[in-house]
Amino acid sequence: MQCVFKIRTDGPGLYEVTDEVAHWLEADQNGLLTLFLRHTSASLLIQENADPDVQADLSAFFDRLVPDADDPSMGYLRHTLEGPDDMPAHIKAAMLPMTLSIPVSQGSMMLGPWQGIYLFEHRTAPHTRQIAAHFAAD
Amino acid sequence: MQCVFKIRTDGPGLYEVTDEVAHWLEADQNGLLTLFLRHTSASLLIQENADPDVQADLSAFFDRLVPDADDPSMGYLRHTLEGPDDMPAHIKAAMLPMTLSIPVSQGSMMLGPWQGIYLFEHRTAPHTRQIAAHFAAD
Amino acid sequence: MQCVFKIRTDGPGLYEVTDEVAHWLEADQNGLLTLFLRHTSASLLIQENADPDVQADLSAFFDRLVPDADDPSMGYLRHTLEGPDDMPAHIKAAMLPMTLSIPVSQGSMMLGPWQGIYLFEHRTAPHTRQIAAHFAAD
Repeated sequence: MQCVFKIRTDGPGLYEVTDEVAHWLEADQNGLLTLFLRHTSASLLIQENADPDVQADLSAFFDRLVPDADDPSMGYLRHTLEGPDDMPAHIKAAMLPMTLSIPVSQGSMMLGPWQGIYLFEHRTAPHTRQIAAHFAAD
Repeated sequence: MQCVFKIRTDGPGLYEVTDEVAHWLEADQNGLLTLFLRHTSASLLIQENADPDVQADLSAFFDRLVPDADDPSMGYLRHTLEGPDDMPAHIKAAMLPMTLSIPVSQGSMMLGPWQGIYLFEHRTAPHTRQIAAHFAAD
Repeated sequence: MQCVFKIRTDGPGLYEVTDEVAHWLEADQNGLLTLFLRHTSASLLIQENADPDVQADLSAFFDRLVPDADDPSMGYLRHTLEGPDDMPAHIKAAMLPMTLSIPVSQGSMMLGPWQGIYLFEHRTAPHTRQIAAHFAAD
């Protein structure tokens, strides 16, 4: 069973997709869910869904670790034609997950109690992102 | 085939789980093993299992890259109510794997000769961590 | 269906393997492809395959983030017997993916238009790297 989720983003940050994915799964099935992001300047992340400050802190950390290309510390970057946020977005996309594999039991993802699934957008301009989903029943 | 491994941790560092996982697999089967960590402040890592210094160096590197929240360089963090090691643990959990997919041949994981599977605990307090395992036979 | 791809590397950097993997898949099948790198000092990466500068910038960033062990900032490393590039290679291998899960539709990986699959070699000396591939048809 396959589908493609389309997520509209409007600037950098985390966009929760847990409910959308959960609703796609059929009740009572066991198996394996795979999510695959079809882009190289965004990420798929499982993180705490309780305190929104966690999401803000994650963005703040990675923005400091990988500053925009117009920051003096990033002067060595060559791929800058698509804007100062583009190559740093590729670097973040390399460091953070692009695919997730989640066991499914009785139609529910085996997420821990505090886990949510997020699209992590790294680009400034609005984008429509595609997540390919695959479910294999046991 | 599914199960949940429970791992007791007693402070930050790497805890090897290779044998536990290997014993769960049935002899002679081919297929795909998936491991999924049900937490957002620890990681699943495949790393060298020969020299324990590798594990100490890995911990040392990530502790320097992501210091505790009471380090002046981390003063921008907002999610600090659960202790100075909590938000850095979430950041490490974002950067390091939370899911692993390992082909299985004749009942054995196709690990390289130096690869071991580790739970990487990022929190200071003792925890019981759950790893959901899924095996799909070919 | 399983196989092992062998990739010869000749120093650090990204080596594209997209075509080799694509040719292995059989036409018209749907299912899930898993790639698993059998090493702890290299990575598997999906990244932009259009501008080679992206690959050079990725290498440059991670070389600055994780300098060789003879750099003064890395003086705390203990696992240095295998050369100054060895422990940094393990650290990069921990931060970057070692396994990839890619849905397959009609015999084609559901990669986005700019996505290529790369072996990211972190060691200086030439190596023969093994990627275990597994395909499960729906």
